[in-house]
Amino acid sequence: MRYIYEIKRCVSMHDLIINFTPTGMVPTKAMNPHVPISVNEIIEEVHQACEAGITLVHLHARDEQGEPTYHKAIYEKIVDGIRTHCNDLVICLSLSGRNFNEFDKRSEPIELMPDMGSLTLSSLNFSTQASVNAPDMITRLAEKMNAYGVHPELEIFDLGMIQYGKYLMQKGLIKPPYYFNLIFGNIAGMQADFNAMSAALHELPHESYWAFGGIGTQQLQANTAAISMGGGVRIGLEDNLYMDKHKAVLATNLALIGRVRQLAEIFERKIMSPSAFGELGFYNRKRQRI
Amino acid sequence: MRYIYEIKRCVSMHDLIINFTPTGMVPTKAMNPHVPISVNEIIEEVHQACEAGITLVHLHARDEQGEPTYHKAIYEKIVDGIRTHCNDLVICLSLSGRNFNEFDKRSEPIELMPDMGSLTLSSLNFSTQASVNAPDMITRLAEKMNAYGVHPELEIFDLGMIQYGKYLMQKGLIKPPYYFNLIFGNIAGMQADFNAMSAALHELPHESYWAFGGIGTQQLQANTAAISMGGGVRIGLEDNLYMDKHKAVLATNLALIGRVRQLAEIFERKIMSPSAFGELGFYNRKRQRI
Repeated sequence: MRYIYEIKRCVSMHDLIINFTPTGMVPTKAMNPHVPISVNEIIEEVHQACEAGITLVHLHARDEQGEPTYHKAIYEKIVDGIRTHCNDLVICLSLSGRNFNEFDKRSEPIELMPDMGSLTLSSLNFSTQASVNAPDMITRLAEKMNAYGVHPELEIFDLGMIQYGKYLMQKGLIKPPYYFNLIFGNIAGMQADFNAMSAALHELPHESYWAFGGIGTQQLQANTAAISMGGGVRIGLEDNLYMDKHKAVLATNLALIGRVRQLAEIFERKIMSPSAFGELGFYNRKRQRI
Repeated sequence: MRYIYEIKRCVSMHDLIINFTPTGMVPTKAMNPHVPISVNEIIEEVHQACEAGITLVHLHARDEQGEPTYHKAIYEKIVDGIRTHCNDLVICLSLSGRNFNEFDKRSEPIELMPDMGSLTLSSLNFSTQASVNAPDMITRLAEKMNAYGVHPELEIFDLGMIQYGKYLMQKGLIKPPYYFNLIFGNIAGMQADFNAMSAALHELPHESYWAFGGIGTQQLQANTAAISMGGGVRIGLEDNLYMDKHKAVLATNLALIGRVRQLAEIFERKIMSPSAFGELGFYNRKRQRI
């Protein structure tokens, strides 16, 4: 399965992976009232996205004050609610340490045995803060994910993170199939220009599934580049709050997904179903599925 | 002055910048007895390197126990000693926060008014630890350097750091002429392969001076690539302890410089003199020169 070769031939034979990111840790209702924050809002949003057609969902949880939380009790409610409506959906939980960087906290959601967990492969800066993912933290998260049958969603903001992923593959800590989110447009990361997108794709291991995401106005650029070149997309309000480049029109998750599907149609790309993606090896095989 | 255009034309009209890095924070005498550690050893090593022919020096200081230190009293002795022998040499002091990350400590060497100070443009992982350079820290270091007439040596381990440098240029915090060290081969950074080297060069602002450094065996690869394409080199025991790829022969700083000069001769490139480099705008104009 050599997904990366698709780019080099510029054909789009694989179905399009749509990785839906409804919430994130940063957006608030004040920034965009359409951001789902509460457990029920997130469940309802993912339900609607499922009906519109997505492949997997990347979840962040918020507590009752709307602040990011790692508590598995809250994640559990969201996951259970989503499974009631869309049992097939591949579910990825965020293990980000942006707001809480202790191992026990970051790794707690792994115990719910989701299909996937996010794994950011180095430290980096966002616009106002450093996000520290020290080598030891990355190793321990990977080990705990392996123990619980959770597959890593590899989060890449720059070339070196791909390099570190390959190092962990060599050490056997990350096992195939590989799934990479390449996220462009962070102020101290790769930008969604041809130079960086090309360089990043060429760094990927041959047998990789990949999706492009972009921050702010770079979301549309990155998504479109990936759709046109045989890759998948990461899409949702987590990364981008607006429909237009002048930031005049607030986005909704469904409108963003709708636009991706419109582009997919233009490029004659079918959406990959959740079960097709799960069966490629991304379902958690240790979890008893209903 | 469009140094970057050199690569595109594959000509080598500019003189070769040799940025000498004798010590660093990591090497010890146990790893390689030729690493200069004490104040006098560093002075003597730089003196000899000057006679062999270098353009600038990138200094780290060690205390009496051989541990990295930020104390300006120690840096001052080194700087004064170097100036006795090689008054023209452009001197860059490290402002690394790898071992001490408080602003007052990291920024203390700036007060000596060296010509240049190192500025790493994001957080990153090294093999066993995170090196945190939060946005606010970077901004404050840049401001203090500007106040003291110290020019930044921009330290780049990945594409996003160049991006962040361009952002600081737009904000007026980093002023031309720009000097970039692109350092390849860190485990979670860019590697010294054509893909990453090309991508990184294409991200540079047009009016940039640049040098390639490499960690371990990638030093020779990165240096040679730069020499062949019109760039400069960062060379010394800070990044690499061996002459050969099997790590059988311990390097000395002079042997490493000698090999660079040998390659420069093959590529018919003259070494840029310290004063030629300083006069390009890298001397500290606020310091009274003797």
